[in-house]
Amino acid sequence: MSQFEIYRRKHTPVLPESIRGTSYSIHEGEKSVPISDAAEIAKTFTKTTYLPIIDIKAETTHATQLPPQTIGVIFSGGQAPGGHNVLCGLYDKLQQIAPGSTLLGFLDGPAGLMKNRHITLTKEYLEQYRNMGGFHAIGSGRDKIASQEQFDAAAKTSQDLNLDGLVIIGGDDSNTNACVLAEDFLTRGIKTNIVGVPKTIDRDLISKKGIETSFGFDSTTKVYSELIGNLCFDALSAKKYWHFVRLMGRSASHITLECGLQTHPNICLIGEEILEKKLTSKQVFEMIADIIDNRAKSGKNYGIALIPEGLIEFIPENNKLFDYLNNTLLPHWTGELNPEVVAAKLPADLRATFESIPRNIRFQLLLDRDPHGNIAISQIETEKFLVAGVKEVLEARKSVAKFNPLYHFFGYEGRCCPPSNFDSSYCYGLGSVASILLANGKTGYMASLKNLSKPPQDWIPVGLPLTCLMNVEMRHGKPTPVIQKQMVDLVGKPMKMLIDNRDSWATEDHYVQPGSLQLIDATDAEAIALAARPTITLIEEYK
Amino acid sequence: MSQFEIYRRKHTPVLPESIRGTSYSIHEGEKSVPISDAAEIAKTFTKTTYLPIIDIKAETTHATQLPPQTIGVIFSGGQAPGGHNVLCGLYDKLQQIAPGSTLLGFLDGPAGLMKNRHITLTKEYLEQYRNMGGFHAIGSGRDKIASQEQFDAAAKTSQDLNLDGLVIIGGDDSNTNACVLAEDFLTRGIKTNIVGVPKTIDRDLISKKGIETSFGFDSTTKVYSELIGNLCFDALSAKKYWHFVRLMGRSASHITLECGLQTHPNICLIGEEILEKKLTSKQVFEMIADIIDNRAKSGKNYGIALIPEGLIEFIPENNKLFDYLNNTLLPHWTGELNPEVVAAKLPADLRATFESIPRNIRFQLLLDRDPHGNIAISQIETEKFLVAGVKEVLEARKSVAKFNPLYHFFGYEGRCCPPSNFDSSYCYGLGSVASILLANGKTGYMASLKNLSKPPQDWIPVGLPLTCLMNVEMRHGKPTPVIQKQMVDLVGKPMKMLIDNRDSWATEDHYVQPGSLQLIDATDAEAIALAARPTITLIEEYK
Repeated sequence: MSQFEIYRRKHTPVLPESIRGTSYSIHEGEKSVPISDAAEIAKTFTKTTYLPIIDIKAETTHATQLPPQTIGVIFSGGQAPGGHNVLCGLYDKLQQIAPGSTLLGFLDGPAGLMKNRHITLTKEYLEQYRNMGGFHAIGSGRDKIASQEQFDAAAKTSQDLNLDGLVIIGGDDSNTNACVLAEDFLTRGIKTNIVGVPKTIDRDLISKKGIETSFGFDSTTKVYSELIGNLCFDALSAKKYWHFVRLMGRSASHITLECGLQTHPNICLIGEEILEKKLTSKQVFEMIADIIDNRAKSGKNYGIALIPEGLIEFIPENNKLFDYLNNTLLPHWTGELNPEVVAAKLPADLRATFESIPRNIRFQLLLDRDPHGNIAISQIETEKFLVAGVKEVLEARKSVAKFNPLYHFFGYEGRCCPPSNFDSSYCYGLGSVASILLANGKTGYMASLKNLSKPPQDWIPVGLPLTCLMNVEMRHGKPTPVIQKQMVDLVGKPMKMLIDNRDSWATEDHYVQPGSLQLIDATDAEAIALAARPTITLIEEYK
Repeated sequence: MSQFEIYRRKHTPVLPESIRGTSYSIHEGEKSVPISDAAEIAKTFTKTTYLPIIDIKAETTHATQLPPQTIGVIFSGGQAPGGHNVLCGLYDKLQQIAPGSTLLGFLDGPAGLMKNRHITLTKEYLEQYRNMGGFHAIGSGRDKIASQEQFDAAAKTSQDLNLDGLVIIGGDDSNTNACVLAEDFLTRGIKTNIVGVPKTIDRDLISKKGIETSFGFDSTTKVYSELIGNLCFDALSAKKYWHFVRLMGRSASHITLECGLQTHPNICLIGEEILEKKLTSKQVFEMIADIIDNRAKSGKNYGIALIPEGLIEFIPENNKLFDYLNNTLLPHWTGELNPEVVAAKLPADLRATFESIPRNIRFQLLLDRDPHGNIAISQIETEKFLVAGVKEVLEARKSVAKFNPLYHFFGYEGRCCPPSNFDSSYCYGLGSVASILLANGKTGYMASLKNLSKPPQDWIPVGLPLTCLMNVEMRHGKPTPVIQKQMVDLVGKPMKMLIDNRDSWATEDHYVQPGSLQLIDATDAEAIALAARPTITLIEEYK
């Protein structure tokens, strides 16, 4: 165990004042309504649609002590910093409001529930995971509870263990699944209540109704921003490299936006904007080449570009092309598969798109396909795609820029960092809220905390019906109620901050080094503020 | 400017007690001798060989105030955290012992000296760079002062500016160059004294004679170890990936060793050991495959492997092959260049070596060549080379291990991080020692501090003749005195610690998360110790 781990385990997360003790009260507020398609969603979720939003408030008198509960908990999907603190918050609050309760951790994700593989989470066991990164206290997994057999298996385990409640810690898919399970259990008359916890470093699980951020986004963007800040100073010192940094975030660009606001790079691409403006790959290459050329003219043959990993799929024409290749051309292909032959077989507009893709990437596209024979778009390294395209543009222009690109991908190294002070308290608070909701018999809810741009003691605990986050989308060819992914708001304040500054960041060197995660418990106000600072995204959106 | 930058600038580095004030004394100790080839080195360095080692000690009486000096300073080569603190230490100490002195920063490396491009470093200008990463206060560069014209240009600038002293902050090559310059100036009768400062994140500039570490190694290994620790927890949580992490360090594996000791990975390859054991690529692939297979047998299809970037060149048979390809086969090659044709033209032993290289890497070797037509060995991504070889072994064995490798390279993102507390004080101290040596008329010395495993107040300032770090090596076909690179000591204590533990780290999960760089000024003893901890390498070597 490292010196750091020994020290950091002793950190005390801060709970909102309203849920510090046992004296809280549950208030049913206004009836919630799905984002859209309410009637359709109410048909699937007959028991969990239109549930009231729950406010949890401080009381002056003590609440009644609740009988002991048996609660299960699952990590579903990719890691996010703070997960262990959700477990600790769950455990501590449960022992406080319903002493003698049992917390069971299902192993390695939803599969643990279906196979009834679990461990009992005790105070002693959890001690070593307090304020620590990773999900390894119980493991995580990506299995889905989807088929009738799987729902039966989940139901059987819940009944065998006499579960009063189950907490599913996951992203939009996992929380959609949590709601389906809640509805299924209600229909079957199984007593197990289900509550979700908003986890994803991508932050695409937010809602104006009461989810200001998802846990892990704060810590992860701080790790990435630390590294990007270091690269900015490296570019400025060596004056000969262009660093192309791909960042996690396949569906939404929140991570890239936050890292951009933290570090002031020369280029910061937001997928949602490229989609809205219907830019072509060629236009993106040209845009980047313009900045490289302009900087070269003032003697600056260096820079930093931030790129969301999902960029290629945000370019509308690419999706049309990939769709045609996967569904029309490649399934019936015989003979040699090389870019020239394929290009000749494409309709004119798609051929132009195909040929706008850099040549080496065209080869890769055709050769590296997934087990279904589909183009493995996610295998294309976005930063290499961009650089190859930019190089072709610079060559065609006979640019005099000295363009030495270096590639980076910041992803896995951020997902299991020790949670920041923000995420330590946020996750501990989310676990506490989940315990309160379950112990009070609520099901089909998301545990949440609002007012997050203020200090943790002022955060506001709420329970949000999962259905109010849903709309209807096509899945496997049929309309399905799902929690809607929340993309970067192109007219929101964080995006405005980028738009207002990016021209000057492109030409000048306004690099900023935000530093590493500060996890020492400080005593002076300035250091405390530095260690506690939330994301710029959150501050801008809620200031 | 970020909240972090504003805060961290105010951090006060700790000077050794002996050089805090103006009351110090200079002691000439024993006569120094080169590592080897002393007589040969003394022929080249007639004036700077056999100089005494200098001890700087505290005095109770005040030293005489020295007349104002004009001192120049240069960053030479790659960035290392703490460089700006060397400038600050130089400036502050100079103003203290020789008030009214002028510090000139030459721009963008040695080229700044040759072209007389400089700025005056004032207190106000330096303020914004205190405790900040990067070399951008004056920039760095890799130009060498090599030809007669270049020495003349350096001499002219030194005379034009009436320089009393010049500080060269660099690695082994730059400090060899510093010594050549010192000798040249002495020969020409130019008054400018030269002092070097040991900079390299690689730590291959150490010496038992009095350089315990080079600056930047501490901070950089802490950043890499933070990220590796995060990956360890990610592997343990997701249980489905093998992370292959390439680390900076082309010539020596000190970085990989330190990061291994910090995080306890399943595999930690040390180039020097592979060289000594004369392992072949095939043997290295087999060794890794064994660990992967063994872990798979106990259900662990995940892990972490650390690899020094120079690994391929540590494998002796590869160097023979590359040498033959570059100097014998490829210069006269005509016709198609594909691996089969090339293999057929190789002598049997080299053919076996060539064929032991994974097939896709053989292609890359032949195609991606440098401007001189040589194989671009440094372009081969070591982690991909290893994984490709390991995959071939696993397939040949019909291994049942589920092997999903992910690739990482940690390099540039560590070089310009804000210096750790250790490097902040170490660099500030090195700058102070350099000022004292120059102001007292010493030339051909390296500024150094010993006793570094103790707190900064107990560090011991010394001046080490540059020639005593030299031996004679072949350069451009002729024997040349150069500072000897210091490799990992295979019988040293840090390596022993790895050897003693690596079998259990390979099979069990003993991962440790050392956490991020802690840069807040703490008040309690535990936090202070955490933020001040030096590298394990240093503690082990000097405990």
